[in-house]
Amino acid sequence: MVVGGRLTLALDAMGGDHAPSAVVRGANLALRRHPDTEFLFFGREGDLRPLIDRMRKLRGVSQIVHTESVVAADEKPSVALRSGRKSSMRLAIDAVRDGQANAVVSGGNTGALMAMAKFALRTLPGVDRPAISSFFPTLRGETVMLDLGANVVCDARNLVQFAVMGNCFCRSVLGIPDPTYALLNVGSEDMKGGETLQEAAAILRNLALPGSFVGFVEGDDIAKGTVDVVVTDGFTGNVALKTAEGTATLYSEFLQRTFRSSLLAGLGYLLARPAMHKLRKRVDPRRYNGAVFLGLNGIAVKSHGGTDALGFAHAIGVAVDLARHGFLDAMRKDLEGVADVLSNPQVQAAAV
Amino acid sequence: MVVGGRLTLALDAMGGDHAPSAVVRGANLALRRHPDTEFLFFGREGDLRPLIDRMRKLRGVSQIVHTESVVAADEKPSVALRSGRKSSMRLAIDAVRDGQANAVVSGGNTGALMAMAKFALRTLPGVDRPAISSFFPTLRGETVMLDLGANVVCDARNLVQFAVMGNCFCRSVLGIPDPTYALLNVGSEDMKGGETLQEAAAILRNLALPGSFVGFVEGDDIAKGTVDVVVTDGFTGNVALKTAEGTATLYSEFLQRTFRSSLLAGLGYLLARPAMHKLRKRVDPRRYNGAVFLGLNGIAVKSHGGTDALGFAHAIGVAVDLARHGFLDAMRKDLEGVADVLSNPQVQAAAV
Repeated sequence: MVVGGRLTLALDAMGGDHAPSAVVRGANLALRRHPDTEFLFFGREGDLRPLIDRMRKLRGVSQIVHTESVVAADEKPSVALRSGRKSSMRLAIDAVRDGQANAVVSGGNTGALMAMAKFALRTLPGVDRPAISSFFPTLRGETVMLDLGANVVCDARNLVQFAVMGNCFCRSVLGIPDPTYALLNVGSEDMKGGETLQEAAAILRNLALPGSFVGFVEGDDIAKGTVDVVVTDGFTGNVALKTAEGTATLYSEFLQRTFRSSLLAGLGYLLARPAMHKLRKRVDPRRYNGAVFLGLNGIAVKSHGGTDALGFAHAIGVAVDLARHGFLDAMRKDLEGVADVLSNPQVQAAAV
Repeated sequence: MVVGGRLTLALDAMGGDHAPSAVVRGANLALRRHPDTEFLFFGREGDLRPLIDRMRKLRGVSQIVHTESVVAADEKPSVALRSGRKSSMRLAIDAVRDGQANAVVSGGNTGALMAMAKFALRTLPGVDRPAISSFFPTLRGETVMLDLGANVVCDARNLVQFAVMGNCFCRSVLGIPDPTYALLNVGSEDMKGGETLQEAAAILRNLALPGSFVGFVEGDDIAKGTVDVVVTDGFTGNVALKTAEGTATLYSEFLQRTFRSSLLAGLGYLLARPAMHKLRKRVDPRRYNGAVFLGLNGIAVKSHGGTDALGFAHAIGVAVDLARHGFLDAMRKDLEGVADVLSNPQVQAAAV
């Protein structure tokens, strides 16, 4: 299902290392790809007005909602929740809650964004805890992974709900009608891993989700693209995400040193440059920017705090895709479909 | 301290995908770099004799201990422990226990090797559970990480012991007198992570190990080489190790596709080939082969099952380094030094 008509995006214009400039220029880039969108910028009007006024097309589809208050990057989520009620982040989320916007995008403090989004938007019926999800480049294309850090400790029931949400996300946004999904573990044999994983696997084997549950996968299966959806707790997911990022950076640094190591190698680089440019584009983290908070009663996308306009435009693109594909309705339906199983006393017991 | 004289290595000649050929040829390669070594090959004499006889120098320093029994790659550790008493793996371990060899190297079933080594060699005083440790290539050189998969669930006390062992391993083998060490977490702020990590950090802050404890590091700090020793539980460590391997493979595959994508890129590759060859050597997993089982009363090194002769030679090199540097004595001393702290009732309580 594709939702037509104009979409309105609420943007936290003050979140991220390069805000508000990266946010405004990101919106301008996103507008080219998604012409049917309008933007509500939340932040300091004095900073925003001159930036937006420079871009004619953007100006025509933008409104500024002025606020002085900004959530600091290192602010504790609980403090932000209490004292940030007038912050650009919170007002942008409230715009989604109040039906003024179809989705919110912020590059600010992740913990604060999650706490505020949970409080203001609430979780969908059947979801105990929202999860952070994103795409990973793989040998086969792209893989959805969750949770990437919202929930450090998870029980079997949390993991099962993540699987339901990741499955729906993959179908809606990647358009894969029958995704394969699995739990991340230290071995693919059925007996591997702790009790929580065993219990989650037992529940998932009996849950009739679209696609197929293939049991357990290991860390190297993420980049191989062995399955479409990798489900894990927020601690493991966060470590895996950052380990992958660190390894990619290391490899790319080694490669640069290699090309600089001799005259011939440098010449070789010049010849291969157009192709290398394509490679760099393919593994460019900005292209995978935009982590989705799944399980909320509204669409909230987190942009990487350190990204630039191009990265922010990609995060906006993720929000647009979710809104266009009627993702929330699909998710509500999926959650209803498994509500019986998840409210089963046995499943409840397994979750303890 | 460096131990002189001849060393004897016990080799499980039947362990690994390319055994026994990779084991024999690996020993032959290792002999060139470590001429003062002798080998005890455990396995089928009929297979081993012709392979060894082909290599004049190796033949002069090798003995074969014949056995028909081999631990299967997919055998359950408990089954291997019970029914593999005459297996090449077990007899090689027993040679270390009985003082006939200074170290054992095997490319066989990891779980079985750990179970047998724990049973036959026992753990060192002060160690509740041994851990698997290995080196990672980083931007700064090499980093030691543990546990890589021996203990799926760990308490604070386990993590503290891993830190003590990793610290000693790093000093002995990398020769860094005052290593930096940290716990792997989802953020570097003091309040991050679950209770177990908080408790382990509290104990480590009060433990006077050589070098300095820097608190928490994140997944990307592994490849950055932020610290010399990264301490984590076996589940997280195993996922991180395999995620890093998977990402490196993905990157390398993308790079190959890039060079094959156009005539110019292919020509560029030809020019850069000598430099690329150095890069490939630098990130070659065979150069990092040889995971050490730390905390045992004897030196046991696990070679990757899929490696070749060069990889196996590296695993032998790790065992030789440990034996030469008097690693076990250093470890005993370190463990004695922290015994008081670790037997403190408060630490015991924190470990629950």
